[in-house]
Amino acid sequence: MGTTKTVVLGAGSWGTALALVLADNGKKVSLWSHNPDQVREINESRTNKRYLPGIEIPELIIATSSLGEALKGTDTVILAVPTKAIREVSGKISEISNAPLTIVHVSKGIEPDTHLRISEMIKEEMSPESLKAIVVLSGPSHAEEVSLRHPTTVAVSSENMDEAERIQDLFINQNFRVYTNPDIVGVEIGGALKNIIALAAGITDGLGFGDNAKAALMTRGLAEISRIGTKMGANPLTFAGLAGIGDLIVTCTSVHSRNWRAGNMLGKGQSLDEVLDSMGMVVEGVRTTKAAYQLAAKYEVEMPITETLYKVLFEDLPAKEGAELLMARDKTHEMEDLTNILNGN
Amino acid sequence: MGTTKTVVLGAGSWGTALALVLADNGKKVSLWSHNPDQVREINESRTNKRYLPGIEIPELIIATSSLGEALKGTDTVILAVPTKAIREVSGKISEISNAPLTIVHVSKGIEPDTHLRISEMIKEEMSPESLKAIVVLSGPSHAEEVSLRHPTTVAVSSENMDEAERIQDLFINQNFRVYTNPDIVGVEIGGALKNIIALAAGITDGLGFGDNAKAALMTRGLAEISRIGTKMGANPLTFAGLAGIGDLIVTCTSVHSRNWRAGNMLGKGQSLDEVLDSMGMVVEGVRTTKAAYQLAAKYEVEMPITETLYKVLFEDLPAKEGAELLMARDKTHEMEDLTNILNGN
Repeated sequence: MGTTKTVVLGAGSWGTALALVLADNGKKVSLWSHNPDQVREINESRTNKRYLPGIEIPELIIATSSLGEALKGTDTVILAVPTKAIREVSGKISEISNAPLTIVHVSKGIEPDTHLRISEMIKEEMSPESLKAIVVLSGPSHAEEVSLRHPTTVAVSSENMDEAERIQDLFINQNFRVYTNPDIVGVEIGGALKNIIALAAGITDGLGFGDNAKAALMTRGLAEISRIGTKMGANPLTFAGLAGIGDLIVTCTSVHSRNWRAGNMLGKGQSLDEVLDSMGMVVEGVRTTKAAYQLAAKYEVEMPITETLYKVLFEDLPAKEGAELLMARDKTHEMEDLTNILNGN
Repeated sequence: MGTTKTVVLGAGSWGTALALVLADNGKKVSLWSHNPDQVREINESRTNKRYLPGIEIPELIIATSSLGEALKGTDTVILAVPTKAIREVSGKISEISNAPLTIVHVSKGIEPDTHLRISEMIKEEMSPESLKAIVVLSGPSHAEEVSLRHPTTVAVSSENMDEAERIQDLFINQNFRVYTNPDIVGVEIGGALKNIIALAAGITDGLGFGDNAKAALMTRGLAEISRIGTKMGANPLTFAGLAGIGDLIVTCTSVHSRNWRAGNMLGKGQSLDEVLDSMGMVVEGVRTTKAAYQLAAKYEVEMPITETLYKVLFEDLPAKEGAELLMARDKTHEMEDLTNILNGN
């Protein structure tokens, strides 16, 4: 509607797919990429072959490599850069922009050492005058499928729910369903920590353990996420929703998932260095495992999957031994674990 | 341990796989089948090719087609017959046996019209003197993988938790992990209703909707199961455990699942009659959909997936139209749904 443009920062697969949703809704989109060749490809060939092969980019989307140009005349910025770049890009936005902005972030991670969620990192880097609201958009949503207009359902959350509802209206259409959830802590933590479980699920698949073992791992993984999440202030119910179990399922069971693929290679015997080299892409779950391992100690919460994965990734525990250790745990009353979550223990 | 034998009634894939677990634990097993050819194959060739191809049946397992002989000298019966045969076989056990028995049932379903759970059906058919306890064993556990000794995790529950713990001890080993859960209502309902969601997931896969849509469906499906389950007296936490989300995951995402396969054919345009003919096996989810549809009305609980699937199965609603109806629902606050579950609304 109207002439206001929406800005998408980051022309990877997810940023581009979200730009497509906005264009499908008739919005003008300014799509920023630091790569001039990619900008030229999008504007001239109307493709983004490396990230979304076979997809046509509509004329409503105009790419630019100038952050200043991208931010001109907008009040809404979709921040779709890798977690590692969040601080740098947020700081630059704050310097350049002179209007208070609503930042919609779509990244998943927790910062090691500071243990901050993405929205907290953004807040630290931006001046109060440059920031109207931070909204998170998260859920089971492989970019490839969104770009093919396959049905997809996500959650949005914010401390400013009016803005979350405005973002819901901006994105929602027949194929892309957007739900609001007031629990921003839970939505951000669910999205971040599921990558740990996806790495672990890739490992059990790589070891050839089968679907029974993977389903058990995902069930225990969700309990583990819920345990630490509630300690951090999340509503435990969020983990039963789209940003919790929904995102966990899609990330653990789909071949599109980078974290699962990395885990799968680890399970087949490759070292972490070999895996990261051959992926050539960011594997958020590796950084997040480090952050969650620290969080488990800080909050004194049992996170056996995270702790075992940490040892596999950073302390040379063989993946098979780690998996066997997890199976042999002698806890045998499943409700104790689960009841503790709701009681916040 | 010692010389007491355990009886497994039903030599399909699940009954046979459970007999293997018991034999791995050094137990003598009497495996009953109504098919004399199958009995001969098991005892002479040490195989059960139709149900578990490639698996060797150890000597500790002795098959018989005589129910009387099978039940002689035991106090523990694993009931692994199709849900449709539960009443008939339970009645026969009650007639034949003269010792109070612990019945471990491993079936998944709810009876249409009566809306009884499996343990309630068994109780109706057996005399009080013939029955010591009823235990349910459920969780993410494809028989094929159990027979390959892949890691598997299940839950056991009973109104008599001492007996549930005895059954836990009977089955537990390095590969087959058994957890207790005192919520028999939730364990039985989770196992039954997940077949509905697996049918629906098969349909969305058959329609080519992709992983995002399936994950959203499973998330909403779990909420739906939790909603009706708590109304029926279950602990909502059970649905976050092995017999809930665990079993849901394995059934919706594995090619081993009959319910998923049936749904997949429906999604590709076959009629229910064609699907049932070509499967040549029981598809529990079809009967369970009917029962759950009635339950939704009885308890006045919203079950949109169940209701839509019912219309696809029994009222000629085209699968694609049903799926689109589900996507277009205008509820957009996900926490309302979820909060209602915990509050029992």
